[in-house]
Amino acid sequence: MISHIMIRNKVDIRVRYAETDVMGVVHHAHYWVWCEVARVALMDVMGYPYKRIEVEGFYLPVVELQAKYRASAYFDDDLSVWAEIQELPRSRVEIIYAIERQGKRLFDGSSRHAFVRKGGGVCKPPRAWLEVLMPYVT
Amino acid sequence: MISHIMIRNKVDIRVRYAETDVMGVVHHAHYWVWCEVARVALMDVMGYPYKRIEVEGFYLPVVELQAKYRASAYFDDDLSVWAEIQELPRSRVEIIYAIERQGKRLFDGSSRHAFVRKGGGVCKPPRAWLEVLMPYVT
Amino acid sequence: MISHIMIRNKVDIRVRYAETDVMGVVHHAHYWVWCEVARVALMDVMGYPYKRIEVEGFYLPVVELQAKYRASAYFDDDLSVWAEIQELPRSRVEIIYAIERQGKRLFDGSSRHAFVRKGGGVCKPPRAWLEVLMPYVT
Amino acid sequence: MISHIMIRNKVDIRVRYAETDVMGVVHHAHYWVWCEVARVALMDVMGYPYKRIEVEGFYLPVVELQAKYRASAYFDDDLSVWAEIQELPRSRVEIIYAIERQGKRLFDGSSRHAFVRKGGGVCKPPRAWLEVLMPYVT
Repeated sequence: MISHIMIRNKVDIRVRYAETDVMGVVHHAHYWVWCEVARVALMDVMGYPYKRIEVEGFYLPVVELQAKYRASAYFDDDLSVWAEIQELPRSRVEIIYAIERQGKRLFDGSSRHAFVRKGGGVCKPPRAWLEVLMPYVT
Repeated sequence: MISHIMIRNKVDIRVRYAETDVMGVVHHAHYWVWCEVARVALMDVMGYPYKRIEVEGFYLPVVELQAKYRASAYFDDDLSVWAEIQELPRSRVEIIYAIERQGKRLFDGSSRHAFVRKGGGVCKPPRAWLEVLMPYVT
Repeated sequence: MISHIMIRNKVDIRVRYAETDVMGVVHHAHYWVWCEVARVALMDVMGYPYKRIEVEGFYLPVVELQAKYRASAYFDDDLSVWAEIQELPRSRVEIIYAIERQGKRLFDGSSRHAFVRKGGGVCKPPRAWLEVLMPYVT
Repeated sequence: MISHIMIRNKVDIRVRYAETDVMGVVHHAHYWVWCEVARVALMDVMGYPYKRIEVEGFYLPVVELQAKYRASAYFDDDLSVWAEIQELPRSRVEIIYAIERQGKRLFDGSSRHAFVRKGGGVCKPPRAWLEVLMPYVT
């Protein structure tokens, strides 16, 4: 049984010159950096800043990614980058992303993350991390 | 009906310090830069260097990505990055990637690309580009 | 004779995870990306957005850089990145940077830029670009 | 009294697509990543791989940079990136860089580095590190 939750947050990103390439648009790798910025901000809002995860002896590396790039982003664009958790994770944490420019969807993606102990192996999400998600269970 | 082809190439990548992050491993976004290096080298081997695509008035942007990150890569690792085309593309070009360190698989991924005319929209793969793939049809 | 001017602007930068390296701090190359963000914002404030330079047929590439790195920046730090023009340029444009975290200076740097015509060579700063600087001459 | 030494090494770099920007050339920040690749290779040749510095409890962060960008680099260019030590360091280590494409000089730069103890402050270069430089004293 999956527990559905709903926690969602948006960050504003202004495209940096260094994020473009000779094609004249943002290079596809940089979208993942923005998704990470949105993921970190989501955890701030959730009440468990990403830094706390590392302080408590864990990492949260990416284990899977997928994305559809629907339209290009350009230098100096003002973008909205959404990050969302839809399910209370039992092992892997899934984050869903959407990137928009003035309501136009540019990108849909998702990442899956494993909790890993520093110097150790994969583990379940720490209880304290799950507890802060409880108020968002629907 | 899908025409199966087989063209595959490997590049050697030595992990750069700048590609690591505070987690002590390579940041996940950089794998896509290596995949791109492998994709460019694959087109060299295929006989249609990527630069020629742009000279002839096209771009080949990423429209989809997916990946599984199986194990970490570290500073100064010597990696093998494989890129492969398995099907003669009718519209989108799919490239399959595998990254290994001394035979250990670290990453599996794929990207899909659309041919786009400069200043224009999505188009089919140019005939000349398909023709260089013909010798690889199995 | 040098005309002294004074135009200065600050941008707020929150350090991204992807900007760190295995040393546990921000990799030195990323400071230049932040300086560029601050330079672009300075030109917005000055009334001549960087994009307009390119629309009018010019580029403004870096021709010289120098920097002192005084203290490390860390993931999630809130930084102030200052960019400043101190002299009305006759040929090269010089921008001075300072990066601080809560009043502590982390970085001092400068860049020099040449105006270059697209498809052409180095040229003087366009008259329209100099004119927007005139109100700042002291 | 300065002890002059001479140790110099070259790495071959092929410009990656992701290293370009919308100006159509390599973004200036990436040159520092190549200089770092050349610096790491120089220490391999010198007989004291960079990784050993960290294993022995030190870091070697950048404390100063300077550069002149003389000509642009483009996607797929084959570049030679030289790194050189000219003086036996007493405190800071200086590395001199030159980047060329088929004999044409694109970039001159230098970096200065401090030895820092992990979790501690600036220190002198470790004796073992200096000793491997001794055969290069002229």
